[in-house]
Amino acid sequence: MDERPIGVFDSGLGGLTAVREIRSILPSENIIYFGDTSRVPYGGRSREILLKYARQDVHFLRSFDIKALLVACGTVSSNVLPVLQQESDVPILGVVEPACRCALAATRNKRVGLIATAASVRSGAYERALAAMDGEVTVIAKACPLFVPLVENGRYRVGDCVIETVAREYLESLKEAGVDTLIMGCTHYPLLEEVVAKVMGPGVTLVDSGAQAARQLKESLTRRGALCTQRQGGITLYASDITGDFGALAPQFLREPAPQVLEVDIDKY
Amino acid sequence: MDERPIGVFDSGLGGLTAVREIRSILPSENIIYFGDTSRVPYGGRSREILLKYARQDVHFLRSFDIKALLVACGTVSSNVLPVLQQESDVPILGVVEPACRCALAATRNKRVGLIATAASVRSGAYERALAAMDGEVTVIAKACPLFVPLVENGRYRVGDCVIETVAREYLESLKEAGVDTLIMGCTHYPLLEEVVAKVMGPGVTLVDSGAQAARQLKESLTRRGALCTQRQGGITLYASDITGDFGALAPQFLREPAPQVLEVDIDKY
Repeated sequence: MDERPIGVFDSGLGGLTAVREIRSILPSENIIYFGDTSRVPYGGRSREILLKYARQDVHFLRSFDIKALLVACGTVSSNVLPVLQQESDVPILGVVEPACRCALAATRNKRVGLIATAASVRSGAYERALAAMDGEVTVIAKACPLFVPLVENGRYRVGDCVIETVAREYLESLKEAGVDTLIMGCTHYPLLEEVVAKVMGPGVTLVDSGAQAARQLKESLTRRGALCTQRQGGITLYASDITGDFGALAPQFLREPAPQVLEVDIDKY
Repeated sequence: MDERPIGVFDSGLGGLTAVREIRSILPSENIIYFGDTSRVPYGGRSREILLKYARQDVHFLRSFDIKALLVACGTVSSNVLPVLQQESDVPILGVVEPACRCALAATRNKRVGLIATAASVRSGAYERALAAMDGEVTVIAKACPLFVPLVENGRYRVGDCVIETVAREYLESLKEAGVDTLIMGCTHYPLLEEVVAKVMGPGVTLVDSGAQAARQLKESLTRRGALCTQRQGGITLYASDITGDFGALAPQFLREPAPQVLEVDIDKY
């Protein structure tokens, strides 16, 4: 048993959907979450800038005595995870590999779709991970740069003509390619699950990358004998910029009341 | 005559619409533009973070021997311009006051609308500037947080159902309030001029805040005897993060070929 907390970070609020999954399957764990809200979004930035920001995010979370760190950001996971892992003696997990493992278990026709940020798609990380697991899988990837701002502005509900139009455009090529499994490679996308399911139709399995990463985190802690089981765990929320939006949206992502958000000057890390 | 360059900055690409106006009315001036693309967008951030970023942006541009600086960012202009001006011996101009002056000259019913980012609207700067010029003006303001990501994703054309739906929603309260003049308080918005004009109808005058600021810049340089008139001026572009998007979109904002973008580590300033 290891009572130390788990660190989780994302560019902004999206990673809270992964925190929700961790809370659901690991209710005794304490979680320290950092959202880099002074520099959100990450999805359109270059690899160099992403590495710089991710190193600071890791450095901040490691200023606490954490037992594991989850990169709940598809963009960072797909671009710079191996570098972060090499530089750290605390186990660092990302969202790419667990999502690919789940997609491979789900696909029957070996045609897997990926929706993610521009930087995630550009990285080719999902293609590499899937190819390493199964050489016969074909990946069809589509960058969806408007999904994050639309979700952060509350436009993720079925019936909203704006999100439905954008979703139909983004998903058209994936439907035409006949994918039977679709990786939602950004932690904002679980809020779009109904919209995406409506466009893709009932024959396509959607893979929530945050949920899969939470499961891998549980496996990893179990293997190391580092699980915590004897108490009610809590959440501590940090952000690099605090505006009213964070407090208002956090409960929607967490699906539970959110604690007060604490501010951190991330440039000091 | 003063041959030194003019500095211009914005969070990202939007300020290039102001550069276009400067080029049009001051073709002999050299312009150094900085887009803070590693931290774009500014429109949802807190005043504290905006001040920190703006100080670095000014510091970088002042590392050149500039004769004037235009803050081509409605969010920075409306939140922290007086602080920047106090701290600098180079004249610093913003976009709020010129836009308000133009709106006041245009309005007949003294009902002026403002569309801008959330942080600009929250600042109350346009209301204060207009009240100081004319105590009888009523300002109706509306934050439009999705306009910048939609423009940056190329969705600004009449006939696009997504931008037209969002524009109708944002502009509804301004139409109902009967404004006859509308300040477009963000340098991204000139690209939305046709969409906004279509929704607002022919009776409403649109004020382009970047264009008005360019005019005030010309007046200010003329007064100081600091105009440059004897040569063909040029543009130098800097950005804090360089991705393919900047190079691809810059000519659309400038309406002329854009030079190669140079990278700067803004955290060093």
